[in-house]
Amino acid sequence: MAKDPLNHLYSRQAQGAQPSAIRDICALVARPEVCSLAGGWPDAQKFPTAAIRRIFDELMAEHGDLLLQYGSTEGLLDLRIVLAQRMNAEGITDVDADSLVITHGSAQGMYLAAQVFINPDDVLLVGLPTYFGGPGAGRARGAQLIGIAIDEQGIDTDHLQRETRRLKTAGRCVKGVYVIPNFQNPTGVTLSLERRRQLIELAEIHDLVIFEDDPYVDLRFEGERLPSLKSMDRSGRVIHLRSLSKIFVPGMRLGWAAGDAGAIRRMVVAKQFADAATNTPAQHILLEFIRQGLLDRQIQENIDFYRAKRDFMLEQMDRYFPAEATWNRPQGGFFIFVHLPGDMDAETLFHRAVDQNVAFVTGSPFFVDGSGRNTFRLSYSQASREDIQIAIRTIGNLI
Amino acid sequence: MAKDPLNHLYSRQAQGAQPSAIRDICALVARPEVCSLAGGWPDAQKFPTAAIRRIFDELMAEHGDLLLQYGSTEGLLDLRIVLAQRMNAEGITDVDADSLVITHGSAQGMYLAAQVFINPDDVLLVGLPTYFGGPGAGRARGAQLIGIAIDEQGIDTDHLQRETRRLKTAGRCVKGVYVIPNFQNPTGVTLSLERRRQLIELAEIHDLVIFEDDPYVDLRFEGERLPSLKSMDRSGRVIHLRSLSKIFVPGMRLGWAAGDAGAIRRMVVAKQFADAATNTPAQHILLEFIRQGLLDRQIQENIDFYRAKRDFMLEQMDRYFPAEATWNRPQGGFFIFVHLPGDMDAETLFHRAVDQNVAFVTGSPFFVDGSGRNTFRLSYSQASREDIQIAIRTIGNLI
Repeated sequence: MAKDPLNHLYSRQAQGAQPSAIRDICALVARPEVCSLAGGWPDAQKFPTAAIRRIFDELMAEHGDLLLQYGSTEGLLDLRIVLAQRMNAEGITDVDADSLVITHGSAQGMYLAAQVFINPDDVLLVGLPTYFGGPGAGRARGAQLIGIAIDEQGIDTDHLQRETRRLKTAGRCVKGVYVIPNFQNPTGVTLSLERRRQLIELAEIHDLVIFEDDPYVDLRFEGERLPSLKSMDRSGRVIHLRSLSKIFVPGMRLGWAAGDAGAIRRMVVAKQFADAATNTPAQHILLEFIRQGLLDRQIQENIDFYRAKRDFMLEQMDRYFPAEATWNRPQGGFFIFVHLPGDMDAETLFHRAVDQNVAFVTGSPFFVDGSGRNTFRLSYSQASREDIQIAIRTIGNLI
Repeated sequence: MAKDPLNHLYSRQAQGAQPSAIRDICALVARPEVCSLAGGWPDAQKFPTAAIRRIFDELMAEHGDLLLQYGSTEGLLDLRIVLAQRMNAEGITDVDADSLVITHGSAQGMYLAAQVFINPDDVLLVGLPTYFGGPGAGRARGAQLIGIAIDEQGIDTDHLQRETRRLKTAGRCVKGVYVIPNFQNPTGVTLSLERRRQLIELAEIHDLVIFEDDPYVDLRFEGERLPSLKSMDRSGRVIHLRSLSKIFVPGMRLGWAAGDAGAIRRMVVAKQFADAATNTPAQHILLEFIRQGLLDRQIQENIDFYRAKRDFMLEQMDRYFPAEATWNRPQGGFFIFVHLPGDMDAETLFHRAVDQNVAFVTGSPFFVDGSGRNTFRLSYSQASREDIQIAIRTIGNLI
């Protein structure tokens, strides 16, 4: 972009911003002939299309004017009440309609939270690896991103403590940590209960904000649901971010953020200028969908559907992948993360796979320090069984 | 908020952010017994409810899966093509699908543009008075706002030049100017052709970005449409922001930004992290609405509808307002701006009016320097004729 005539006018953040490499990869391989395990989108065949069509029609007949008018910035009151009640039932007891804001997806929740908490040059701790939402929102505010190791129990709290101490000693303001506690993107790993306790304790000791991004929590295939960080928080320092994209539909762009009422109020003020309000018909449709008991049914159907796909992919991997590759067995969500032997390069593998019309996402773009060159992410969410089989066999042979 | 336990953790911008006083006023007076001329929302009785209901139903029957899936961050390609063609037909010839991004309302367009162009402590010039969208987006980036006088020809370019020189001499980075060229909110004033030429020239001389926020341009009741600043721009320094809220429906949260392709690409990168993508069904519905020729019909109907309401309010003002008050005759849009004699306080008037169940918006919140205490804004957009008559008579008597 050296010849861009406006280059000298861009903000420092815009000059440093990079498009998501993961999105670029997904766009690159979005051709019908490619068997792709790259995208992390939900499978459209599971969308409750008929119910949404019926509900919209009924609502429009009843009060179309209300459905198409501006709504309040914090979101539809009745929907906030219903979502807060659902959270109460999950064990997050201190949430009500005033400590919850409806957002255009959980991405917007994180973006607004970053706006409210992060100053330029603050440090934001993120998983190594992590989904780009937290790092991207942090970078937009001029944060420095520091990676914290992730193992099979989730983010490594010992490493987090060491890094926080080191950074604070160096005079840095360590503002918070971005964590995806359940079936993390890209590793599929779930933060253990012990680690959750440690993380809350460390946040207290070091005065950190925890950005808890939890889009997959409802898609647990097996095992017991663990308490959210928000439910363990005693000082209002957890901002809990949720998405409807994986359990309802992504195109409506619905999510919510819950936290300390003062912090949420500030996120609402930020949203006034960010986009004024969330899409009104989408909120009314969701509210009615929940009221009719359809969301809980949809969640159960999605669990069964994606569990079967996960099982199928794991079977294929057992069959076709060599012993040198290792991977996890996620208890929910959309992703399996593969480690190749240390000297193998996943990007070379990627290009060879694409030559054979098979795609996945290399791991490196998920590591803010550029490491992870021997890793890649597989998603079973959107691919057909046939595509999964072809892709896994091809990748296995290439390894 | 002194007792907020998280206060020390908030960003500088969040600590300084104030909710929009105008929104607070509108919320305060949103009671059914109040005859309100406060809100700037469109009238819901003009929404094309039946057409939207039919189109959504047809689209869902045909490809519901596509409608409910994620879309690309820049927005639906076919919609960008159609909107670019419409702009070409308006005389903005250098716009195509790659120099246009669909946004969640023009508010988001301004927010993303501020993210891309504004560094903390940059100066953003804004009208005295102005709608809060530009100032709010600027403040979110840590900009300093400097007010530029507005007269019956729009923003005062002489004043703008003097202030820019003064600020630059003082070592400040004057990054840009936020301007609403047509039927400005709150003054109803339209920037004259001569002033448009001067503004473009000054932007060249002083290397300014022009944020051209143009939500009302299509609602011109009379007189000739003036060329947009974007159409007069020769160096890519105009970011042109448009909204569907006043000519289609506001609840869908649709708008777009057009500008230099490099700048738009950076806004798309910012949007990846701000909210990933714009609501998919809303974009498909709008595209179909345009394709069926309904948008042009809707615009014409809205023009006729709001012109009649403007005429009615002006008649009532002629009848009931004393000679000491002065106001403009807007050629389009939603607003009439009233000046009281210099020693009168519009806030006192406001409280007396509310006591009689009549409401409007005081002018002062629209002035970033806190001036304008003898002004107020009246909107004819949402009120019924009956409410307009009662409110104008009451306000006239109180003055």
